[in-house]
Amino acid sequence: MSEQYTEFIELARELADISHAEALLSWDQETYMPARGVTQRARALGVLAGVHHEKLTAPRLVGLVVELSDRGCEGEEAVNLRELKRVQDRALKIPKELVVELTETQSLAHEAWIEARSRSEFPLFAPWLVKVLDLQRQVAHRVGFEGTIYNAFLEVYEPYARTEELVPVLDELRRRLVPLVERILATGKRPATGILDRSYARSQQEAFGRRVMADMGFDSEAGRLDVSVHPFCSSLSREDVRLTTRYDEDKLTGSIFGTIHECGHGLYEQGLPEDAEGTPAGHSISLGIHESQSRLWENMVGRSREFWEHYLPVLREHYPDQLNGVDVDRFYAAVNQVEASPIRVEADEVTYNLHILLRFELEREMLEERVGVGDLPELWMDRMEAYLGIRPENDAVGVLQDVHWSLGLIGYFPTYSLGNLYAAQFFSRAQVEMPDLMDQVGQGQLLGLRQWLRKKIHRRGKRLTAQELVEEVTGEPLRVDFLMEYLEGKFGELYDL
Amino acid sequence: MSEQYTEFIELARELADISHAEALLSWDQETYMPARGVTQRARALGVLAGVHHEKLTAPRLVGLVVELSDRGCEGEEAVNLRELKRVQDRALKIPKELVVELTETQSLAHEAWIEARSRSEFPLFAPWLVKVLDLQRQVAHRVGFEGTIYNAFLEVYEPYARTEELVPVLDELRRRLVPLVERILATGKRPATGILDRSYARSQQEAFGRRVMADMGFDSEAGRLDVSVHPFCSSLSREDVRLTTRYDEDKLTGSIFGTIHECGHGLYEQGLPEDAEGTPAGHSISLGIHESQSRLWENMVGRSREFWEHYLPVLREHYPDQLNGVDVDRFYAAVNQVEASPIRVEADEVTYNLHILLRFELEREMLEERVGVGDLPELWMDRMEAYLGIRPENDAVGVLQDVHWSLGLIGYFPTYSLGNLYAAQFFSRAQVEMPDLMDQVGQGQLLGLRQWLRKKIHRRGKRLTAQELVEEVTGEPLRVDFLMEYLEGKFGELYDL
Repeated sequence: MSEQYTEFIELARELADISHAEALLSWDQETYMPARGVTQRARALGVLAGVHHEKLTAPRLVGLVVELSDRGCEGEEAVNLRELKRVQDRALKIPKELVVELTETQSLAHEAWIEARSRSEFPLFAPWLVKVLDLQRQVAHRVGFEGTIYNAFLEVYEPYARTEELVPVLDELRRRLVPLVERILATGKRPATGILDRSYARSQQEAFGRRVMADMGFDSEAGRLDVSVHPFCSSLSREDVRLTTRYDEDKLTGSIFGTIHECGHGLYEQGLPEDAEGTPAGHSISLGIHESQSRLWENMVGRSREFWEHYLPVLREHYPDQLNGVDVDRFYAAVNQVEASPIRVEADEVTYNLHILLRFELEREMLEERVGVGDLPELWMDRMEAYLGIRPENDAVGVLQDVHWSLGLIGYFPTYSLGNLYAAQFFSRAQVEMPDLMDQVGQGQLLGLRQWLRKKIHRRGKRLTAQELVEEVTGEPLRVDFLMEYLEGKFGELYDL
Repeated sequence: MSEQYTEFIELARELADISHAEALLSWDQETYMPARGVTQRARALGVLAGVHHEKLTAPRLVGLVVELSDRGCEGEEAVNLRELKRVQDRALKIPKELVVELTETQSLAHEAWIEARSRSEFPLFAPWLVKVLDLQRQVAHRVGFEGTIYNAFLEVYEPYARTEELVPVLDELRRRLVPLVERILATGKRPATGILDRSYARSQQEAFGRRVMADMGFDSEAGRLDVSVHPFCSSLSREDVRLTTRYDEDKLTGSIFGTIHECGHGLYEQGLPEDAEGTPAGHSISLGIHESQSRLWENMVGRSREFWEHYLPVLREHYPDQLNGVDVDRFYAAVNQVEASPIRVEADEVTYNLHILLRFELEREMLEERVGVGDLPELWMDRMEAYLGIRPENDAVGVLQDVHWSLGLIGYFPTYSLGNLYAAQFFSRAQVEMPDLMDQVGQGQLLGLRQWLRKKIHRRGKRLTAQELVEEVTGEPLRVDFLMEYLEGKFGELYDL
């Protein structure tokens, strides 16, 4: 290892140290920070972001990247150089004044969005969205892009993905999902979800959730579970992975599937390669791959019949009265009810991706100026009707429901659907390589799957791109078939299609 | 306000922002961090300390301090300039290599101390203490000092205090305390402390502690109470003040007095001037003044007969069985038992300062090379015998009991006794200005005292030095009489002297 490379890695690790501090400040803000601490916290996060930017774009680090690039690197050195260069290039291209203007505008846009959503008045938010889009377009032109402008955003969350390749995949997904949803809804079957809405004491929800986490192999010496308004997973390091969930005593499944979902993210972080810790190669690959881990555990495992064959009796020990006489068939059907709901975050496995596709299409059309901000509410309603057969009551449960655009998070939504597609393809492969996988799940033995994911995915860190990983693990590129076959099989049986 | 001063303040606030992050990382390490997070946390704290140092000694800030000093400032501007310059000068004078060597040596010395204490083998720690002292002496010579070398350390924790002025005060305190302790112990009275050692459920200890905190006026929208091995108060900002305590079901008073003590610190932080937030003038004055706030609440209020007249019935509601038939006299006597114990942190109000004086004397003598490290254990034993009439069983409960020296915290101990002296003098004044103060305490009305402290002390921030504050609040310089009269009065009555 050259002297320059050693210094380069030490500077990269300092960036990880600053990220660690930023992550803790953000985690604390959502979990334990007293209400009035918010002003000082915002200041401190701003200063840390500044320090991060300074260190990332420091002349010495820029010089090292140039020197090492000129000389050429191989293997893991090449990965670290490529990945650091990627974010450094972007940071260098966006002038500080534009960053400041974006931060301020998005903060105000976020306030306006809160107000607009609470009153269900899109016009309150519209001028802010116009401003955010305008500034984000400036960012795109500064950083440069090939093909559609959308590529300049997608690459932030899903590096090396290209819109041109993603569009046909997600189009195919939509073409195949819409009729499936129609057929399911046409059956008129409504599994008795009432059993999930009885009163379930919080302490027992937590005890059950922690039991499942332990069975999944989450290392509690290297992580925590806390409570926040919106569940998330924040990795302070692979040895300090923090999950949150939320408990609603009137809604049993929120905390259960929320905990399993975040634990899926957490296992990925805990499984990252120790020898690459603090360097780019030691990071997760992309939001899509991350989401594949949470969705795989939440849906393919947590919403499977086999899972509940083992865990329903466990859950019944916590709630003998509420679950008295509820059998696995009924419970399994209840946690897999398909509904045409206007709200993304409440959507089931089948309809979920249609919510995403709608957003992906609209944000592309906005950025490419094929659609004006003023037309959004109507377009939203029309497409909801086309995809799910419903028209949301108002904009609060329509175009205003998600926080993302107000914060400038454009290009983020498709990673959710990519996560579902990756998950299905990985899970299909896992079942090929471990023919008794679902039998293991049916006995509450979840560690075999964790080991497989760890070896095949987690331990690789960022040494491969998402596309390379999918090909290496499954032997073929990303295909819609895996998710569709999974959904058609599972829901075909559940709804007697 | 000049442009330079405005920029100076903005840079000073950035330092406060970095301190905020450092404080959160440290707080989290003691409260919620999972065990295996410790390595990454140490790295991140190191990098943040580096960022702090860089910002403090950045050429621009150094230049602004010179410019503003040359031009001359008045009022609060002068305070901010003086206080920032004080820490900046010190930071500039200590070369980076010395800081690194100190950090590494103290880290190893700390490990050695843990081992030495657990085996009660001072020789394991002695060579490390020699090294720490040697490096700290180098620091002193770099930063410079007048009079004794001890001044170079004292000023870190108690700015503007001088050893030459402190020695006669603490000598007088020792001369007057030793005979008082002798007289008390000679009575042979041992109040029934057994009632404090019954089993007290933790949840009720916490409920009672939180009740007292609320009565003291701690703002829970601007702070928290958590649990840690060693109780502390950490101020992330005046609107985010974090206290910790610990619960021992076999020891009722540990958590109660610990919580009141930390809450005293916390009220000081919450009461600092809002208009000076994030600037030096918005900070607390010194460790001694800080400790005066915690000791005043813990001892003068929390261990008073009037306090328990109101709160014993409250506590009895939490523990009807354990406190059945225990009257105020008995409880009051029990929480004020005087004992010659070898352990500082378990010492009562009367003997506590003798533990401190012993340490203050020894660390001065070591620094001034009047005493060798090898002689410490024997000297410790001899002085314990002279002051408290006991010889500790071994070094683990003797010279090895405190963590401070292993971490290079020299000059810190006397601030504990200063805190007690300040507390008594402030409290005496409060009683003069509020003649019904103890009647208020006897009715559980604690807000009057908090308001007085807020107005007289907390709201002043760092605009005065400790000496100036004492004179302004009490009309005279620090005197030993206040503490001695308080102790002689209270314990004279308790022990029928």
